Amino acid sequence: MQWWKVILLVVGLAALFSLGIILGHFAIPKPTQAGPISPSQDLDQELLETVMSQLDANRIQENLRSLSLEPHMATTQRDENLVQLLLQRWQNPESGLDAAGEGVYEVLLSFPSREQPNTVQVVSHNGDVLFTAQQSEANLTGEQGDPEVVQPYAAYAPAGTPQGLLVYANRGAESDYAYLKDQGINLTGTIALTRYGGVGRGAKAVNGAKHGVAGLLVYTDPRDINDNLRFPNETFPHSWALPPSGVERGSYYEHFGDPKTPYFPATPYAFRLENDDIQGFPPIPTQPISFEDAQNLLCNLNGSVAPNSWQGALGCDYKLGPGFQNNSVFPQDSEVNVTVHNRLELRNSSNVLGIIRGAVEPDRYVLYGNHRDSWVHGAVDPSSGTAVLLEISRVLGTLVKEGKWRPRRSIVFASWGAEEFGLIGSTEFTEEFFTKLQERGVAYVNVDIAVFANATLRVQGTPPVQNVVFTAAKQVPAPGKSSLTVYDNWLQHNNRSSPVHGVIPSLGSLGSGSDYAAFLHFLGITSMDIAYTYDRSKTSARIYPTYHTAFDTFQYVETFLDPGFTSHHAVAQTVINVLLRLSDSLLLPFSVSDYSETLRSFLQTAQTDLEPLLGQQSIDLGPLVSAVERFERAAAALDQRIETLKKNLSDPLKVRMVNDQLMLLERAFLNTRAFPEDFYYSHVLWAPRTSSVVTFPGLANACAEANNTPNDPRAWAKVRKQLSIAAMAVEGAAATLEPVADI
Amino acid sequence: MQWWKVILLVVGLAALFSLGIILGHFAIPKPTQAGPISPSQDLDQELLETVMSQLDANRIQENLRSLSLEPHMATTQRDENLVQLLLQRWQNPESGLDAAGEGVYEVLLSFPSREQPNTVQVVSHNGDVLFTAQQSEANLTGEQGDPEVVQPYAAYAPAGTPQGLLVYANRGAESDYAYLKDQGINLTGTIALTRYGGVGRGAKAVNGAKHGVAGLLVYTDPRDINDNLRFPNETFPHSWALPPSGVERGSYYEHFGDPKTPYFPATPYAFRLENDDIQGFPPIPTQPISFEDAQNLLCNLNGSVAPNSWQGALGCDYKLGPGFQNNSVFPQDSEVNVTVHNRLELRNSSNVLGIIRGAVEPDRYVLYGNHRDSWVHGAVDPSSGTAVLLEISRVLGTLVKEGKWRPRRSIVFASWGAEEFGLIGSTEFTEEFFTKLQERGVAYVNVDIAVFANATLRVQGTPPVQNVVFTAAKQVPAPGKSSLTVYDNWLQHNNRSSPVHGVIPSLGSLGSGSDYAAFLHFLGITSMDIAYTYDRSKTSARIYPTYHTAFDTFQYVETFLDPGFTSHHAVAQTVINVLLRLSDSLLLPFSVSDYSETLRSFLQTAQTDLEPLLGQQSIDLGPLVSAVERFERAAAALDQRIETLKKNLSDPLKVRMVNDQLMLLERAFLNTRAFPEDFYYSHVLWAPRTSSVVTFPGLANACAEANNTPNDPRAWAKVRKQLSIAAMAVEGAAATLEPVADI
Repeated sequence: MQWWKVILLVVGLAALFSLGIILGHFAIPKPTQAGPISPSQDLDQELLETVMSQLDANRIQENLRSLSLEPHMATTQRDENLVQLLLQRWQNPESGLDAAGEGVYEVLLSFPSREQPNTVQVVSHNGDVLFTAQQSEANLTGEQGDPEVVQPYAAYAPAGTPQGLLVYANRGAESDYAYLKDQGINLTGTIALTRYGGVGRGAKAVNGAKHGVAGLLVYTDPRDINDNLRFPNETFPHSWALPPSGVERGSYYEHFGDPKTPYFPATPYAFRLENDDIQGFPPIPTQPISFEDAQNLLCNLNGSVAPNSWQGALGCDYKLGPGFQNNSVFPQDSEVNVTVHNRLELRNSSNVLGIIRGAVEPDRYVLYGNHRDSWVHGAVDPSSGTAVLLEISRVLGTLVKEGKWRPRRSIVFASWGAEEFGLIGSTEFTEEFFTKLQERGVAYVNVDIAVFANATLRVQGTPPVQNVVFTAAKQVPAPGKSSLTVYDNWLQHNNRSSPVHGVIPSLGSLGSGSDYAAFLHFLGITSMDIAYTYDRSKTSARIYPTYHTAFDTFQYVETFLDPGFTSHHAVAQTVINVLLRLSDSLLLPFSVSDYSETLRSFLQTAQTDLEPLLGQQSIDLGPLVSAVERFERAAAALDQRIETLKKNLSDPLKVRMVNDQLMLLERAFLNTRAFPEDFYYSHVLWAPRTSSVVTFPGLANACAEANNTPNDPRAWAKVRKQLSIAAMAVEGAAATLEPVADI
Repeated sequence: MQWWKVILLVVGLAALFSLGIILGHFAIPKPTQAGPISPSQDLDQELLETVMSQLDANRIQENLRSLSLEPHMATTQRDENLVQLLLQRWQNPESGLDAAGEGVYEVLLSFPSREQPNTVQVVSHNGDVLFTAQQSEANLTGEQGDPEVVQPYAAYAPAGTPQGLLVYANRGAESDYAYLKDQGINLTGTIALTRYGGVGRGAKAVNGAKHGVAGLLVYTDPRDINDNLRFPNETFPHSWALPPSGVERGSYYEHFGDPKTPYFPATPYAFRLENDDIQGFPPIPTQPISFEDAQNLLCNLNGSVAPNSWQGALGCDYKLGPGFQNNSVFPQDSEVNVTVHNRLELRNSSNVLGIIRGAVEPDRYVLYGNHRDSWVHGAVDPSSGTAVLLEISRVLGTLVKEGKWRPRRSIVFASWGAEEFGLIGSTEFTEEFFTKLQERGVAYVNVDIAVFANATLRVQGTPPVQNVVFTAAKQVPAPGKSSLTVYDNWLQHNNRSSPVHGVIPSLGSLGSGSDYAAFLHFLGITSMDIAYTYDRSKTSARIYPTYHTAFDTFQYVETFLDPGFTSHHAVAQTVINVLLRLSDSLLLPFSVSDYSETLRSFLQTAQTDLEPLLGQQSIDLGPLVSAVERFERAAAALDQRIETLKKNLSDPLKVRMVNDQLMLLERAFLNTRAFPEDFYYSHVLWAPRTSSVVTFPGLANACAEANNTPNDPRAWAKVRKQLSIAAMAVEGAAATLEPVADI
């Protein structure tokens, strides 16, 4: 070979070799770590479609059939059987979770006596029993005859046998009793008949006792629950309406969690209050009755006619009492006797917990739960939610067992015990794992009653969840309306105008109606509650009519609430979509700026509704204005940094740091000293608000109180303190959103 | 070319090309991210050596000279000048930090009146003034004559002019006043003379007032502070001992933080208590005096001789009073008049904060601070610490400015304001940034007085810091003993036998003596306090003798405490080593198992000292035993997982997850409801313990109380509750150490 050919060959070879090196280095991506899991694992849209499509309405239906076959009140044998059913499902080698187990707490529950049922009677002057209310609901479909159906009762109401003249006290609000007093009625020693709604169950008894009422009756008025239907042939099983014999059971405890162990988990090491030291039990014997029985009492009452707003649909003029009319079926001096034999009992209640371990960030928990216990068969409450929970865990569990998927973060599934007695199982869980959950909880998703009715999605939650729920709802077809998404359908039913987003579905806020309460108020974990619900143009029912009665059965759901289980299916699809977005998105799908909108709105309401009052006391909202402005700036700037970060998500720590800011924002609104009288409430924005002014609850309540006692300097000090608490929370939250290395 | 040559060439080229690709892909490491910082950046031993060697004792000395040139009591002009000095240093373009700024709080301080100095006088029956205590210290070295030297006073003691017979009440403990009462002495309306030590300053007044004492005097006995030296020619400037005219100033507020704003930062939005509503101020006028003046009073007292343990070194028999001896320099019926003109004032106090931003995990804060304010010149307290702080920030700042280094995590430097009045600046800071700090704080390192004496290192901290402090101390040569490390020297001076580690230096526990208090007790951040201190075989001084007096000057330090500043240098080297280990170690250098040892020891003490008592009430320590065992198992298992992880540290998220467990362990011991009466204390293991039984403080205190009132069932309920609180904390902490995806 000639020398130039040799050179050419060598140069050519060298060039090719170099090109190879260059290509090899730059063109072939290196796996960034040893295992099959990448720290940049992100949400997989295709997988999202797959899991949504694998949810099966028939399986939800069959789940519900099994779950609601028999009454399963907390800690009964049937409740225990369902614990085993849950464990079996979640430990199934083909479709179960990575691990599942039980958490048992010894808690204080309240039951009526089988041997001595509670009674409500009309008794004549000489002691003859003229009338006895039914002790059980009519057996209309067979289920009501089950010996495990518990007698309707007011859980935690004390035993006792008060007897006295009957009065009608509307909803048992403080103002209702005050009205009776204003009418010259002496309430001391009376039995007050009240209807459900307006105020909480326990409050009816607490308010009454303050005025000397000796015993309380509560019933459900057909006006409030049945859109006025009241006859047997127009109520269940002929429609979804409550039969005349239906009685709403419920807990009358004013707080939540195990009453003996506030702030301690009800474990063997827990400090337990003596029963006499427990605060929040109703102070007087109380018994719920049917509207059929209420009619017999109410339509025979003496006294002046009750105000219009007190009237209901029992087909007579409601009068105030006291006592019965002269010409009624009962002699005028007849009294009502309420005999309550409820007993407090320490019982073992179980939570069932399951987990799919996160592949990348196992120490981040997306929690999803529902309670398991019902009052009777509980097909709607809570089994509709549990039927969905089981179907979702089956679909995700199967993927995991097949090795096809593992979430980025851990998903924790929970079936809570003893919710009906006061959110007990979930509260004890948050007490037992307080630090761990507060450090690591990404979000809590609650689906209690999955389907109240089949009209529209309804979501309650804190502002950051709006974004993820909307995104999910846009990917789910609305049941029965193939051309519409769940989102569009929701938008049609219940919307609001947002200054930022325009017209959007309206997100409700979270009180303490279900197991999210301790997660939000005690732990400060971003929470939501998801369900399908009513078309409010078609019903004004306070809640679905058979709520907490023996008529809440599988047949009821199948026939009236959700034939074909399409709404259950839509809820399941929405929830599984939300769960995967929370567990798998590289960046958490929370929009912190949506909190800016809430804070601005709280501030504006305070300025409009409270500033005139505050001005008179030289109390300045300025600090709150600064705080909200700072929050708005910090949130907007964080949004921008996130947009920048999205362009290069390769650094797992940068992603984690931003996610920590997003995850922990809700915690920043906690102040354990803000509401010392309200057990567990420490979230400064969502604590109970008794005032009608929609602003920071502590501020609103303190202003309402000071407005009533304007000459008490302590009341105004309380206003100042609550204003300071609000400003501090917002400032502190803003500080967590600002760049992490700013000082 | 022949066809076989062509084939050979092509095959050869292809092979070379492939080889190139292979080499390029596998043999040349890819940068794992864009920037120069690697997420696996770990502690650099060489850098550690470098920074330690760059610390300069001369610069520390010159820092101290500048800092202690003039009195710089909180919020005075000179304090403000030092704020500017700090800012200048930390904002220096060559040797400063990334950023530095001020945090200002409007807080309630207490000052004597310049116009009307406080007086202590002996007054005869007819009103003649027989004796007046000195209003200032003797001007021995020039500094004491500075017009900015504040008159000795008891901060927060109320104004007033009590006058009465003098009694001697030893240390002003509850038992001391009780003893006087038992001796038949009526304390009502008396002036009590007490000596420093034994109980807190404020407690002397609180206890006295309970017994009717009208005014309080406090002095420092030469026995307690001077190893009995008391004459001018044997005390400073002739030795380190306290001159006869020296008076210890101090805060008599019983809690810490700004008194007007407990649990709120003293910002414009803070809710402020009315001064009358503040709890924890001494209830009676109080004034500290010198032992020279005390001698005049005490050595002339009437009454029976005080017990041996009450005697001091003033050269006379201490008697109890009331009133003076018949044959003394004062007529027997002479009274002592205490006139206090202290005023409460709202003042702006500044913290100075600086940061070196972390390169990899900027959202993890290693905090390092000291207060800036002194009572007078404060060369020792606090300027010795600030002199070290400035030198450390210079060395680290210079490296950062030169682009040679940036820590993995952020380092936050703090110069706190108004510590002397009750840890005010640091407490307000923790209140303002509560959530942010609780989420992100890795550790708080406090160096208040850097050098009490030049004998040995002394570290107080929670158990996890033992490991990092020991490791650091082993790398620092002991001052003046070139063959010994600081660790070995420490081991010789103060050791204990650990069942796990054998004989090791003894780590002290943290009370509320300096700015770590809010970090540990309120935020639950792992904390430590580092200093050089006494050889206890050579002195029994309660603290260095010129503490809080006008004799705590630069000359004092240079001549007596640390000639050559070698101890300052050793403290600086230890601290910078600790800081770098905390900021740069890939895995946090905390040993959680060292908490197992503490818990086991607390448990064993409870079993030995409390179980007999508890057994009588059927109170079982079983739950605590289970909790401690669970913690031990969890900590040991975590240690093992960390060992495994160390073999492959390439996954930054795995490292971060373990670090989060280590960092947050301390938080798990917090319970905001454990000690509702003690402001800010929520750490279940380190809250104040009044009982002498070294175990869980809440349990120990409750047992001591119940032992005193054994027939009160509420007292035993409190014991049960505290036992439950302890068990819950340990169980909850164990849960945070267990594998993160266990349920």
